[in-house]
Amino acid sequence: MKYEEFTVGQEYHETVRITQEHINAFARISGDQNPLHTDPEFASKSIFGRPIAHGMYGLSLISAALGMRFPGFGTIYMGQEVKFFKPIFIDESVQIKLCVKELQPEKKRLILTTTIIKENGEVAIDGEARVQFNPDLFSFEN
Amino acid sequence: MKYEEFTVGQEYHETVRITQEHINAFARISGDQNPLHTDPEFASKSIFGRPIAHGMYGLSLISAALGMRFPGFGTIYMGQEVKFFKPIFIDESVQIKLCVKELQPEKKRLILTTTIIKENGEVAIDGEARVQFNPDLFSFEN
Repeated sequence: MKYEEFTVGQEYHETVRITQEHINAFARISGDQNPLHTDPEFASKSIFGRPIAHGMYGLSLISAALGMRFPGFGTIYMGQEVKFFKPIFIDESVQIKLCVKELQPEKKRLILTTTIIKENGEVAIDGEARVQFNPDLFSFEN
Repeated sequence: MKYEEFTVGQEYHETVRITQEHINAFARISGDQNPLHTDPEFASKSIFGRPIAHGMYGLSLISAALGMRFPGFGTIYMGQEVKFFKPIFIDESVQIKLCVKELQPEKKRLILTTTIIKENGEVAIDGEARVQFNPDLFSFEN
């Protein structure tokens, strides 16, 4: 898509399943090895009752959706505000919802609301991303 | 540490080296497979000249430092504001800097500034985290 094709209110949705394998990998590469995320036995005795995803892994899924699909290739991530409301469990299928809140055409910028909704309908993560979208920046013909 | 031991102005620093292996793994598990992050040949022709880390991977390192070391185990991540200023390159050793900005003792909350500084001294990522710190929540004796 081109910048000019985006409109305020436009939405994007996708569903992602959270796997223990991805959470274990995230723990390893980020360094956040809290057993609440990676050890089912430990997590079963916690207030959560079972392993939960790192909040930042949820935000990483939002980041990937922005960069790869909506707006997509040509997105430069400028900033993010986020609140973590509810834990996301391993093996949950969550819905990522992006919505164009504001356009700033003079700088090819978009402000999008960024939300992750749990299987039970609760909002797990909510916030707002600021991006610049300019696929020409990434074309190397010049 | 206990919540009562934290003071406004208190700082934490650590240095982390960004590796292509970690960035490739982050691309796989987040789904952000932009070749700017993972393909040196492609990235060499981009405006960046070489592969860059996902901004969200930088923020993941901040998240890990908060959860594991400062404040550490017992940290519940409530929210984050972040701005991405400069790209972080593969093989860069970046400094993560956390600083206690505000204490809200009635709810055992801390607001911390969260910064990543590049090898050349430039600020790559800057922002603010809101956390609750209560190691008792994670003790399962009761």
